[in-house]
Amino acid sequence: MEIDLPEVVAEVRKAFNAYEVALVTNDVDALNTMFRDDPRTIRYGGGENLYGYNEIKSFRVARSPVGLGRTTSRTVITTYGREFATASTLYERPSAAGKIGRQMQTWVKFPEGWRVVAAHVSMIDS
Amino acid sequence: MEIDLPEVVAEVRKAFNAYEVALVTNDVDALNTMFRDDPRTIRYGGGENLYGYNEIKSFRVARSPVGLGRTTSRTVITTYGREFATASTLYERPSAAGKIGRQMQTWVKFPEGWRVVAAHVSMIDS
Repeated sequence: MEIDLPEVVAEVRKAFNAYEVALVTNDVDALNTMFRDDPRTIRYGGGENLYGYNEIKSFRVARSPVGLGRTTSRTVITTYGREFATASTLYERPSAAGKIGRQMQTWVKFPEGWRVVAAHVSMIDS
Repeated sequence: MEIDLPEVVAEVRKAFNAYEVALVTNDVDALNTMFRDDPRTIRYGGGENLYGYNEIKSFRVARSPVGLGRTTSRTVITTYGREFATASTLYERPSAAGKIGRQMQTWVKFPEGWRVVAAHVSMIDS
């Protein structure tokens, strides 16, 4: 298995960046497209545990679009072969002073493209 | 790509269960063996952000062995092909009443066996 093949990393980075734009602009349709539509997709969020694509989709629709802007740091994307990747990043929000957010995603490449199959977001004191 | 091939799920479940035993018994050597020895391995913990195997190893050695016992629930292991898997579980600790823990791991199969390449642990109000 080849790790961090440049062309694969570039693909995942593009997907990761598109996710970030969709997140801070609260583009719900784009966010939904990037998570795999499957009952096994899981998202542990800042205050909720979502099992399955339907729960994730419902959360997105109900989420307040206020204060989603953030600054990321220490982003690491690592690819394993041509179909698997992890993406980890820290982030800070003006609305959450003194806190540091952590976002970790597992991406898998399907015929329809790269999709998040598991994600975990949390905040701790910085 | 075949998802959840029974023999692959069984391999990952065995590794996942071994990790759980090592965690609650604070078997530091076993825990260290199960994380991939690589600077790209990342672990976001309950109160710390660890980048690279060395930081993770140092954290394990310094960690208090008190109160690590826990009860897991809603564990989901999903495999993608024969070399990639995610494992997600909720957990509760007697020492953290009113809180629910979330642990998410990405496992990759290397020649030496299944290893965690990314992990994220956090607690929220239950």
